[in-house]
Amino acid sequence: MVDILHRVGVENASADKVYEALTTIDGLAGWWTDDTSGSAEPGGVIAFRFPPGGFDMEVVEQCPAKRVSWKVVDGPEEWVGTTIDWDLRQDGDHTIVMFKHRGWKEPVEFMHHCSTKWATYLMSLKSLVETGVGAPSPHDVHIAFPD
Amino acid sequence: MVDILHRVGVENASADKVYEALTTIDGLAGWWTDDTSGSAEPGGVIAFRFPPGGFDMEVVEQCPAKRVSWKVVDGPEEWVGTTIDWDLRQDGDHTIVMFKHRGWKEPVEFMHHCSTKWATYLMSLKSLVETGVGAPSPHDVHIAFPD
Repeated sequence: MVDILHRVGVENASADKVYEALTTIDGLAGWWTDDTSGSAEPGGVIAFRFPPGGFDMEVVEQCPAKRVSWKVVDGPEEWVGTTIDWDLRQDGDHTIVMFKHRGWKEPVEFMHHCSTKWATYLMSLKSLVETGVGAPSPHDVHIAFPD
Repeated sequence: MVDILHRVGVENASADKVYEALTTIDGLAGWWTDDTSGSAEPGGVIAFRFPPGGFDMEVVEQCPAKRVSWKVVDGPEEWVGTTIDWDLRQDGDHTIVMFKHRGWKEPVEFMHHCSTKWATYLMSLKSLVETGVGAPSPHDVHIAFPD
């Protein structure tokens, strides 16, 4: 088992504001992919679509301003069954985001790619909350070709 | 044991050119930190310094256009003894960079931070080779505060 771990600090942002970007369709569409639909409520399934394909995430847990957990229920074989956890911690006028994408069976090349790509999307989330403008797909930062 | 894994693709670049950016003091100073010194030869020790501190890396292995391995011999406690491997693979007119920072004892918060920060430095390496301009410290991309 190998994990993808990341951490960013969002400046001048309450944990509530970051939580909103992780738990509403509009918020998610603002930093991960324009093409986000479905139900972002606990027990719901969110459909994230990108030009090459996408992921369906079941919302497993939501604790306001603290934690969001998803389980991948459809998508690339390597992703199905993996979990994505977001832990938020407000510290003064900024919010720390701790990210974990766990349950990968093997450290395949695609996992290396996803690790770097997640970092760019976390920077997009940070930018969305800080400035109102993220870089969701198809306006995402390219780390390779195709990606 | 938990690892930091990343992958980027450098466009219009030979593996030789990426290798040069990983095995010369000038190359390393162009994407990781302006303040790079020491010996980048096998068996040598490279000193990477940043405003808050730095790392000394022993060059364990170099295989032209293919592989570079470092071992951390001084720096933050969590880093000492960890290893950093770069594997390069030229594919047509681009080069795939596979990165592994292994040997972390625990998935501490600092490791989450380093994972995201490495992603931004890999993007800096990509940019340096593609455009001639990287974003080495102290001109690096900030992912939190301080970082």
